Amino acid sequence: MLSPLDHLTQLLGKLPGLGPRSARRVVLFLLKKRESLMLPLIAALRDVADSVQACSVCGNWDVQSPCTVCRDVSRDSSTICVVEDVADLWALERSRAFKGRYHVLGGTLSALGGVRPSDLHIDDLLTRVRDDDVQEVILALSVTVEGQTTAHYVSERLASLGVSITRLAHGLPVGGELDYLDDGTLTAALQARRKAE
Amino acid sequence: MLSPLDHLTQLLGKLPGLGPRSARRVVLFLLKKRESLMLPLIAALRDVADSVQACSVCGNWDVQSPCTVCRDVSRDSSTICVVEDVADLWALERSRAFKGRYHVLGGTLSALGGVRPSDLHIDDLLTRVRDDDVQEVILALSVTVEGQTTAHYVSERLASLGVSITRLAHGLPVGGELDYLDDGTLTAALQARRKAE
Repeated sequence: MLSPLDHLTQLLGKLPGLGPRSARRVVLFLLKKRESLMLPLIAALRDVADSVQACSVCGNWDVQSPCTVCRDVSRDSSTICVVEDVADLWALERSRAFKGRYHVLGGTLSALGGVRPSDLHIDDLLTRVRDDDVQEVILALSVTVEGQTTAHYVSERLASLGVSITRLAHGLPVGGELDYLDDGTLTAALQARRKAE
Repeated sequence: MLSPLDHLTQLLGKLPGLGPRSARRVVLFLLKKRESLMLPLIAALRDVADSVQACSVCGNWDVQSPCTVCRDVSRDSSTICVVEDVADLWALERSRAFKGRYHVLGGTLSALGGVRPSDLHIDDLLTRVRDDDVQEVILALSVTVEGQTTAHYVSERLASLGVSITRLAHGLPVGGELDYLDDGTLTAALQARRKAE
């Protein structure tokens, strides 16, 4: 039987970025700031656990379903950006570069990890494309073996629906130094070179 | 007005070792593991917030006061190890090298930080030494300017009580390579050299 302190330390140590040592530091920090941080944190966790749910349309996390993005009538509903994860959706939202809708797959296909097409929200995507008069599907998936396998599979499934399928450009990250880039990125950037303006 | 997700992210970002980015990762991780991690974590935090308190004798955090260490009659009550923080007490307990009692000062004196003697549990220490027939006080304080200033001040306050005052040895950390040690540690280790056995 673990003590409450050890039990809390053990649970905190499971969070990404925290190990046993840093979890212990967090526990001590919380005990010192009981009123100003620990109690507000408990309330905030409770609030999120009670109110946040996955959007029934796109899979985003929000306090309402459909989520704020799906409810926003000013957004272009003819374009769907397909992402692996809600983290990617949030990253794109922070960039403010995209004004269409999203679709969260919930992962990538992985033979090793045992993730099959039926484990991802691919059928839902097909239904949305068919029913909502979607013109373009942007595959914003990671440039990894799993990400590209998934992109390929989703493309094939969408092929018969007559929708335009695009993917994010590969190339130099803005602010990135050429010297530090891997060969794959350099090759992609070279092949996709454009006329200088 | 922040959304529940943003509010939780903001609070998590205040924890040591977590910044805004990693706090966001933690929130997404918790949402994915709602039943297996988020709800148990809320319960564990609630449990600690409700049950853990500072020991009225030594200042340790525990579910009871006096704490487990102070209640343990098998421990040597004639020796008190003075530490800055509960984290230091826990570190010493993990080493299993000390079988006496502790006293947590709650910080170090700091002219810059505005920490005065009255802000630390120094008077309580004097009372314990006087009333509990304490023979030795070990000053296990950090080897920093603040730590050593505090050690000096506590020594002076204890001087008239006729108790033996010791401090932890300075020297090479076990497993430490000479090459990587700072000059201060090397000097201390050289000055405190002992006859080889």
